[in-house]
Amino acid sequence: MKLLEEKIRTEGIVLSNNVLKVDSFLNHQIDPFLMMEIGKEFKRRFQANGITKIVTIESSGIAPSVMAGLELEVPVLFARKRKSLTLTNNLLTASVYSFTKHEENTIAISSQFLDSSDKVLIIDDFLANGQAAKGLIEIVEKSGAEVVGIGIVIEKSFQEGARQLREEGYRVESLARISSLNDGEVGFLPTINQEVTA
Amino acid sequence: MKLLEEKIRTEGIVLSNNVLKVDSFLNHQIDPFLMMEIGKEFKRRFQANGITKIVTIESSGIAPSVMAGLELEVPVLFARKRKSLTLTNNLLTASVYSFTKHEENTIAISSQFLDSSDKVLIIDDFLANGQAAKGLIEIVEKSGAEVVGIGIVIEKSFQEGARQLREEGYRVESLARISSLNDGEVGFLPTINQEVTA
Repeated sequence: MKLLEEKIRTEGIVLSNNVLKVDSFLNHQIDPFLMMEIGKEFKRRFQANGITKIVTIESSGIAPSVMAGLELEVPVLFARKRKSLTLTNNLLTASVYSFTKHEENTIAISSQFLDSSDKVLIIDDFLANGQAAKGLIEIVEKSGAEVVGIGIVIEKSFQEGARQLREEGYRVESLARISSLNDGEVGFLPTINQEVTA
Repeated sequence: MKLLEEKIRTEGIVLSNNVLKVDSFLNHQIDPFLMMEIGKEFKRRFQANGITKIVTIESSGIAPSVMAGLELEVPVLFARKRKSLTLTNNLLTASVYSFTKHEENTIAISSQFLDSSDKVLIIDDFLANGQAAKGLIEIVEKSGAEVVGIGIVIEKSFQEGARQLREEGYRVESLARISSLNDGEVGFLPTINQEVTA
């Protein structure tokens, strides 16, 4: 997605060979116009697949997911990273290790919002080692729902997550694919657009 | 806002005289169409006020804020509840006690995204005791920016926050105002619409 790559090129900050900071438009400050364009692109890629629900994870997954939900006309469900007092019954949970924050989190979704009739699009801001995506897949599949695809804003293709998920047979659609962050430079791969017209 | 009150009436769950659970459209599952209507309503109320930025707090403030940002054509900045490894420089912080979660959080915003030229609309999902709103006000004012108004999706008018903030001179625009949750029933107050046409 050209607009997104341009934004990463001009505003992204390479902190190390592993870490790209996009706090000016996605992870801290959010560009609503860009989020809308991202929502439209996810619609273009998944509109033929009968999606009934988007599942994401707080916090940075919410903005692109809500725009995609508006475009695809489906509700968005976000997993919480800690249990709250008002979210206690019938939780589906998974354990997710964050390499960025060096901590293990339990992520949780209430089972009342997912069932075996759901065809789910999982959306997240980044895909690196795939920990969050795998946790979300685990939860969705526990509910009996089907994971139709995984929509990622920024894939760090030089880490393991995307390759592993594709090898396991999941359809991963990433709007920007980063080949390398070496020497402070962001390298891009062509995006894969599987456009399954089921 | 009629559509929102209707949604609260039909889907809200009164857990106690203090706690209203709206997990089906705002706090866990999100209704993107409702969020868009909420964004339009915030635009209607604040479009004359030269807003340059929306400031909110993760996670449930993000969806209504991004829609309002799209409508008002301004960026959205969300405060984080814990420091992350990629958000470390020049933090503006405030301490916020959550009565729902019984815990104290430090909320933080990077100072690079706010300055004295900014006219800020603060948006949040709930206003009860006003802890989150006061923390956000503290951060925004530390940056030198001006708090033009506070946009709230659901105000629990029987708690202290809204009254205190209005007494301090802040313009608080709440799209639904709940007078009471006694006996498992949601009571509504008429909404106050100050519509300052500056």
